[in-house]
Amino acid sequence: MKQAVPRTRLDLDRIRAVRHVIDPRFLDSPLYECDALGRRLGCTVSVKLETANPVRSFKGRGAELVVSGLTGQGRTAAVCASAGNLGQALAWSGRRHGLDVTVVASRSAPAAKLAGMRALGAELELVEGDFETARERAVSIARQRDVRLVEDSLDIETCEGAATIGLELASGTPPFDAVLIALGGGAMATGVGHVLKSLLPAVEVICVQPLGAPAMTRSFHERRVVTTGATDTIADGVAGRYPIPAVLDDLLQVADDAVLVRESSIVAGMRMLLEDAGLVAEPSAALGVAAVLEDRDRFAGRHVATIVCGGNVDLDAYHRWVGTR
Amino acid sequence: MKQAVPRTRLDLDRIRAVRHVIDPRFLDSPLYECDALGRRLGCTVSVKLETANPVRSFKGRGAELVVSGLTGQGRTAAVCASAGNLGQALAWSGRRHGLDVTVVASRSAPAAKLAGMRALGAELELVEGDFETARERAVSIARQRDVRLVEDSLDIETCEGAATIGLELASGTPPFDAVLIALGGGAMATGVGHVLKSLLPAVEVICVQPLGAPAMTRSFHERRVVTTGATDTIADGVAGRYPIPAVLDDLLQVADDAVLVRESSIVAGMRMLLEDAGLVAEPSAALGVAAVLEDRDRFAGRHVATIVCGGNVDLDAYHRWVGTR
Repeated sequence: MKQAVPRTRLDLDRIRAVRHVIDPRFLDSPLYECDALGRRLGCTVSVKLETANPVRSFKGRGAELVVSGLTGQGRTAAVCASAGNLGQALAWSGRRHGLDVTVVASRSAPAAKLAGMRALGAELELVEGDFETARERAVSIARQRDVRLVEDSLDIETCEGAATIGLELASGTPPFDAVLIALGGGAMATGVGHVLKSLLPAVEVICVQPLGAPAMTRSFHERRVVTTGATDTIADGVAGRYPIPAVLDDLLQVADDAVLVRESSIVAGMRMLLEDAGLVAEPSAALGVAAVLEDRDRFAGRHVATIVCGGNVDLDAYHRWVGTR
Repeated sequence: MKQAVPRTRLDLDRIRAVRHVIDPRFLDSPLYECDALGRRLGCTVSVKLETANPVRSFKGRGAELVVSGLTGQGRTAAVCASAGNLGQALAWSGRRHGLDVTVVASRSAPAAKLAGMRALGAELELVEGDFETARERAVSIARQRDVRLVEDSLDIETCEGAATIGLELASGTPPFDAVLIALGGGAMATGVGHVLKSLLPAVEVICVQPLGAPAMTRSFHERRVVTTGATDTIADGVAGRYPIPAVLDDLLQVADDAVLVRESSIVAGMRMLLEDAGLVAEPSAALGVAAVLEDRDRFAGRHVATIVCGGNVDLDAYHRWVGTR
């Protein structure tokens, strides 16, 4: 168990305060036990559903804070790199608050995410290569145009936004035994983890990453930044290679564990979420279920919450994965 | 436009009061604009999502009131006829509050609904025939066993529970131009309609039923109960043949229109909800989208809300309908 008041870049009072800045459409997302899923997994499973909102992922929470902060400073434009969900969320918030948003994304990002960003009014620049290439390009654009660079997980607003999920999880009764959080850059894991460790330190905070994109998990276990070569996973939303040192420091304060799961388990997780909960989850959103599948004994009879953090998938690929096509 | 204070069996103050009796898991369901769906349909579309809860339909709201009322009277058992969603909801609430629930259902109800009721602890009795046969059998069982018969749409609690959706819709800003409501027995249409006509009389309340199960819609237009022969629709949740006179009276006070839609439009609606909103909807939950598809001019440029009222489907049939298998 971690210390009761974790020392991270986050602050519980501030997280409570920023709730008021976030559009209510992104707050108080459904949180409910799914009996059928629990029976399949041998434990009690609560789903925290972050897909039933205008951008179909949890990123709306943080994007609202980022955009509010920037427009409050009189900024009119921003640029970010995105695997697709942050870009859609920033575009949605930017459109409502008068901020022009440029998103740099990999050409290999899901077509649905690219189309979503365009449709919401983002200027989209595609790069060959992966998310890390997009990050580099976003840095250049920010310098060239002298506009603000939004950096997922490093910018504290992205963590604070995700942390509001933690407030909602912490108000669930009875408390969960464990919360399973998809781990990518770390905004969600550090944000939610900070709140849980502050309010309910006995709840186990478990981060889950694909074996094919293990940089942050390896860094967590080695307690230092470990970078990796090319990623190989369908979970596009969490496929980074260069952990951010400040985010890793926070993660070390709030996470009890970080585990890696196989692609076949991610696919099985997506299939179960569809069959047993009627939910269309993107691969990153099935990481929690995948973690239970790979270590049933660890969770047997316990009450686990899993954050279904996004539902932006290319349906063709999705149906291929879950076996309906 | 209907009168500002409709005279029905429902009462706005009471509807506000009963919110406190309903488990929060069923309240404040997501309400959000879906850009992609709106673009496809040529209007602004807001989704009120009633599938992200433990029973995957809106029926949990009313069931909580029914069960609370019965256990408050010291009852320990109840029986109902159900197409599958009310039965699951009563079973869920009954299990939590110590009420034994017997459900009579048609053998041809979706296997997922039958399995769901059993898994939640309902005693299930299957009949050959349709929902109306199940209703007759439920009446007999109630008499034989001297237990309370729960009658969907007739029992005011079932309407009041659904009416709490109306309170949440009425708090949406800006107000909608029209709200599309699946019409079966009429609990949801009269409940939501009563609240909307009380609080926002300018909002058009439009009920939608399948052409293959048109009894209530015909009754609405003829202003008298019209029964029909066998139904023929995949929308199992709304396939009744014998409208209840008291419910029809209420519907006449609060609905602006009732329309019938083709099966092909229901299927297209389910497909759009999946493709454009990432939602698995049962056929009854796609009736609103189907209504827009059949009369695009009527809704062009307007802001419509559609209640996605249930997501309990047999996946094999679902994939066949939406074309993924």
